[in-house]
Amino acid sequence: MDARPIGVLDSGLGGLTAVRRLTHIMPSEDIIYFGDTGRVPYGPRSKETILKYAKQDIAFLRTFDIKAIIVACGTVSSAALELISGEYDIPIIGVVRSAAMRAAALTKNKKIGVIATQGTVASGAYTRVIGEYLKDAGTVEQACPLLVPLVENGRFQKGDIVAETVVREYLEPVREKGVDTLILGCTHYPLLYDIIADCMGDTALVDSGAESAEYARTILKMTEKQAPAGRQGRISYYVSDSPENFIKYASQFLGGECVHDAGYVDIEKF
Amino acid sequence: MDARPIGVLDSGLGGLTAVRRLTHIMPSEDIIYFGDTGRVPYGPRSKETILKYAKQDIAFLRTFDIKAIIVACGTVSSAALELISGEYDIPIIGVVRSAAMRAAALTKNKKIGVIATQGTVASGAYTRVIGEYLKDAGTVEQACPLLVPLVENGRFQKGDIVAETVVREYLEPVREKGVDTLILGCTHYPLLYDIIADCMGDTALVDSGAESAEYARTILKMTEKQAPAGRQGRISYYVSDSPENFIKYASQFLGGECVHDAGYVDIEKF
Repeated sequence: MDARPIGVLDSGLGGLTAVRRLTHIMPSEDIIYFGDTGRVPYGPRSKETILKYAKQDIAFLRTFDIKAIIVACGTVSSAALELISGEYDIPIIGVVRSAAMRAAALTKNKKIGVIATQGTVASGAYTRVIGEYLKDAGTVEQACPLLVPLVENGRFQKGDIVAETVVREYLEPVREKGVDTLILGCTHYPLLYDIIADCMGDTALVDSGAESAEYARTILKMTEKQAPAGRQGRISYYVSDSPENFIKYASQFLGGECVHDAGYVDIEKF
Repeated sequence: MDARPIGVLDSGLGGLTAVRRLTHIMPSEDIIYFGDTGRVPYGPRSKETILKYAKQDIAFLRTFDIKAIIVACGTVSSAALELISGEYDIPIIGVVRSAAMRAAALTKNKKIGVIATQGTVASGAYTRVIGEYLKDAGTVEQACPLLVPLVENGRFQKGDIVAETVVREYLEPVREKGVDTLILGCTHYPLLYDIIADCMGDTALVDSGAESAEYARTILKMTEKQAPAGRQGRISYYVSDSPENFIKYASQFLGGECVHDAGYVDIEKF
């Protein structure tokens, strides 16, 4: 048993899709969430800058006595995690490995598609990690730089002609490769689930944020670090820009659940 | 005469549209450009964060012996400039006043439209400053949060169905108000000039970045601070993320002119 909280970090709001799954499958865990809303998005930035920001985000989370960190940001998980996870004495769980394992288990024809930010695709991390679990996998990675701005502007409903057109453009070449499994490699993308599912027919969709929560549960169980059952976990939110905007838009990512309070962090100090 | 350089700052690449005009109308001036590419975009951020970033950007530019600063960022010009310009002993020239003066002079029916980022529109700065020059102006402000991501992803050509649809959606309510003049209140928007012009018919378009260069010329002339004529001005570029990406995309904003080198700045240190 270990009652210490789990830290969750993201460049902004997308990581809340991991929090949503965490609270569903491990309701007694305390969670400290940090969203770097003052510097979002990470996707288009260079590897050096992503690494620098990720280290600051982790340094802030470690001011709390946490037992593990979920990096619920596809860009950090792919560009920086392998470089930094060895530096810490607690488990650092990323979305890439979590989603890659699930996709490798799900695929029948060994053709897996990945949609993600430019940073994630440029890193080639998904192809590399999927290859660890499935030697002869055919992985197709597609950068989708406009999907985060679309989601952040509330344009993710079916019937939105702009969102549907952009998603179709990005997915068409992936679909044509005959993938039977598609990883949503950015934690913003689950909000576009319906539009993506429409485009992809009966392809299995893997939600990388949700998978990171599932993987965290496995790790905590194996190491006997779960919180005592029966209690109600508490979630604390911190952001690096105005908490008002975060509070306003958080519920879209939490499936309707509201955030009532969030603290401001001057992340450049870390 | 004053041979010291002019500082130009922007959240990223958009300010290069002001540099383009500067080099055209004042070819003998030296320019120091800073683009905060590690924290772009500023548009969706809170006023407090924009203010903090702007002060850091100016602090960096002031490590050079400059004679004036052009704030070629609509968001900073509107949200922070009135608060900070009094703190400095050199002229700080923003795009808002520059564009507002031009629009007030151009309009016949006193109906002026403004398209800009959320931060700029939320500040109400354009309505306020236009009111100083044209007492009974009817100003219509429209936030266009998706235009910066579209431009940054290279989607600004005529015929791009997504760009055309989004621009039309934003502009329709502005056009219906019968404006005869439209301010492009974000320095990214000139790249969408053709699509915007198609939507707006014979409305006069005011390019806020270019106007800030024109206004700088007026101020330098009045104060006799122009660089000696006849020499070739030198431009130095600095950014807060990888210079490679900046160099790659800069020419789109400079009308085809290439940037060959740029320096990295750790802006959080300022």
